[in-house]
Amino acid sequence: MRMYDIIKCKRDGGELSREEIEFFVNGFTRGSIPDYQASAMAMAIFLKGMSEREIADLTLTMAHSGDVMDLSRINGFKVDKHSTGGVGDKTTIVVGAIVAACGIPVAKMSGRGLGHTGGTIDKLESFPNFRTSLTEEEFYDNVNKIGFAIAGQTGNLAPADKKLYALRDVTATVESIPLIASSIMSKKIAAGADAIVLDVKCGDGAFMKDIDSARALAKEMVAIGSNVGKKTVAIISDMEQPLGFNIGNSLEVIEAIETLKGRGPADLVKVSLTLATYMLILAGKAKDESEAMQILNDAIGSGRALDILRKMVAAQGGDARAVDDYSILPGAKLSGECKAVESGYVSRIACEETGECCVVLGAGRETKESEIDLGVGIVLSKKVGDRVNAGDVLATLYANDEKRLDEAVKRFECVYHIGPKAPERPVLIKDIIR
Amino acid sequence: MRMYDIIKCKRDGGELSREEIEFFVNGFTRGSIPDYQASAMAMAIFLKGMSEREIADLTLTMAHSGDVMDLSRINGFKVDKHSTGGVGDKTTIVVGAIVAACGIPVAKMSGRGLGHTGGTIDKLESFPNFRTSLTEEEFYDNVNKIGFAIAGQTGNLAPADKKLYALRDVTATVESIPLIASSIMSKKIAAGADAIVLDVKCGDGAFMKDIDSARALAKEMVAIGSNVGKKTVAIISDMEQPLGFNIGNSLEVIEAIETLKGRGPADLVKVSLTLATYMLILAGKAKDESEAMQILNDAIGSGRALDILRKMVAAQGGDARAVDDYSILPGAKLSGECKAVESGYVSRIACEETGECCVVLGAGRETKESEIDLGVGIVLSKKVGDRVNAGDVLATLYANDEKRLDEAVKRFECVYHIGPKAPERPVLIKDIIR
Repeated sequence: MRMYDIIKCKRDGGELSREEIEFFVNGFTRGSIPDYQASAMAMAIFLKGMSEREIADLTLTMAHSGDVMDLSRINGFKVDKHSTGGVGDKTTIVVGAIVAACGIPVAKMSGRGLGHTGGTIDKLESFPNFRTSLTEEEFYDNVNKIGFAIAGQTGNLAPADKKLYALRDVTATVESIPLIASSIMSKKIAAGADAIVLDVKCGDGAFMKDIDSARALAKEMVAIGSNVGKKTVAIISDMEQPLGFNIGNSLEVIEAIETLKGRGPADLVKVSLTLATYMLILAGKAKDESEAMQILNDAIGSGRALDILRKMVAAQGGDARAVDDYSILPGAKLSGECKAVESGYVSRIACEETGECCVVLGAGRETKESEIDLGVGIVLSKKVGDRVNAGDVLATLYANDEKRLDEAVKRFECVYHIGPKAPERPVLIKDIIR
Repeated sequence: MRMYDIIKCKRDGGELSREEIEFFVNGFTRGSIPDYQASAMAMAIFLKGMSEREIADLTLTMAHSGDVMDLSRINGFKVDKHSTGGVGDKTTIVVGAIVAACGIPVAKMSGRGLGHTGGTIDKLESFPNFRTSLTEEEFYDNVNKIGFAIAGQTGNLAPADKKLYALRDVTATVESIPLIASSIMSKKIAAGADAIVLDVKCGDGAFMKDIDSARALAKEMVAIGSNVGKKTVAIISDMEQPLGFNIGNSLEVIEAIETLKGRGPADLVKVSLTLATYMLILAGKAKDESEAMQILNDAIGSGRALDILRKMVAAQGGDARAVDDYSILPGAKLSGECKAVESGYVSRIACEETGECCVVLGAGRETKESEIDLGVGIVLSKKVGDRVNAGDVLATLYANDEKRLDEAVKRFECVYHIGPKAPERPVLIKDIIR
């Protein structure tokens, strides 16, 4: 078997056999297939596509290119949750605590933020002394004891995907449904859960900008799941504006806690409960949406979900008093307001740009090596469809550095769009693919 | 400017500006753009194509990536000749000698053989002590004195093309009209001639297997020539069977000499004189085909063309007595015959396979590092359309190694196809693009 022939086959629109896909992925991971052949291959896949069978084979081969987590030491049916990334997306913290309170063990591997999207691991580090690198032992024990643990991705999970993603990132071969779908699902499969609920974000602040590509990606991932025997459901949720009001690490933690206290913003509550609903259904804890909603509302209303979060934070070394006293969390010394220059209705909040302004404030990473400031961020006062009068505060920006604040405030001026008529309220849950 | 954006533009079917093409080619040549980005780019070009303007820019950028020959030290209008490569193609030796005898200076850079196709430089080394690495001084002086010199490609001619070709060769991005056309033409432009006559081979033994792709390549190269101000004509000639009867280095030299003596095989004579005709016309030595033919036939009939060859060989250190005494050329100790097993007509001579059998005999290179045997090869006795009786010799294979001979004879058994009816004679000159 020669890599040359495999590239040629895909270049000409052919279908690769499982053996050919394994030869490519394993050879590339080991280094016997050079980068320049892998990038030509990635471009051929980008432009010629892959069949569902090929995508499933690619996913499984990448999933098994390194360690595969053995979650059998955790009791119960394990459901994983994954978001394709957005602005203000703190659902993992909310959903994890709620479903754990419903008796579903949540053993979650999470990532750090990059670019305009945040990462759960960064957010949780807002709790002073919180540790995200747990030993395997701790991780499993905490899940069995508390029901909930979140760790940074450790070990050698899907190294093939990691290497291929880095190459795609510099060769303009990222935005390919087969390659994105197999990348995400290979990591989820290596993470060992029994079933997977996906949150495919769609809109300006997301990777998938339009509903068609979001739906195509969601369908592809659900198909992979069914092809490899893992029940998978994907919801497609709106990312034309940030989720909730708070963006920035400790600010998002506060909003997540508020949600667990029953005081969350409507959109965050809705997305979180929808994801949690399907986790319950896949785990067999509820037979339908309405039963799931009863169970979930009880988990929140009873305070059990909030209690799970407290225990999880404490078990990972964090200061759980912060759940009740936000002043313990990192904060910002400076703030600046963005005010409406005219009256009307908020017609648009440029979502990716909001995330970029957070990066300017210091809340996000420009490169993998950037240091971030957990206390800074943005709190929106108005969302799309809201009525505003000239002079109303639209959002408040928080910073610890005057130069950064000035730059972000200036840049943020273009984020809000005000129109004369009330726009249609955006549909939050655009589709559910199962 | 970022290479990432340039790849993305081409990936999405966009047209690259001249600046973007220069950024890519020059960065890749210098090493600031890595192989893996260049190969993704090559695949994007392969699958998305290029406009004529882009191809002209790519060609010129590659042509000027290194030295450009200054042929102004050679008197007269210089016409270059290039063949896309085939089996038994010894036209350069024949054409060079003839047109030099007609007063057109021939300053030819040639290559070595690779795979199933031979190279002029190898063939000429059949003359004992023949030197193909000449100083620039010698090269120009010989052309001015004799009218004809052939040297191996020296110096730093179109290094961008060399580097890109090596990458394409291992990433399945060779068979792309824009990339082949710009590769060939960049070298021709760097070689400095005033006009170019191209022999685009078409058929089983050629790179272009069908007339449509041969025509597309020919048109593209002629368009590049006109875009960059070099008059260019392309003939498309048949390569469904080997050209002439002899394949192998010294065997082809003998057939070329025979042709200059007026005793060449009809197909070789026809292709050679057609190429020479257009070289005369482009150089203004003849106003049309019929005038050109008169001049060419006189150059052969008078013995002047043969004399040019003698002088050229001697000037490059070779033993010119071989022109009249073939026993001075390298020969073979062993031979084997391939005979017809049935009576009928030769319907096909598998052309690429004939070349491969020559490689097995030792006449060609499997890799760039292979040593070749100049004395071995194949002499066909029958060509397509010839009547044969069972037991007739179809071809004789010559070798200096028994194992190689056995393997080649066995493999050659499948080369000739005999049918009951006389097939149509192949059209030799399929088209002329100007």
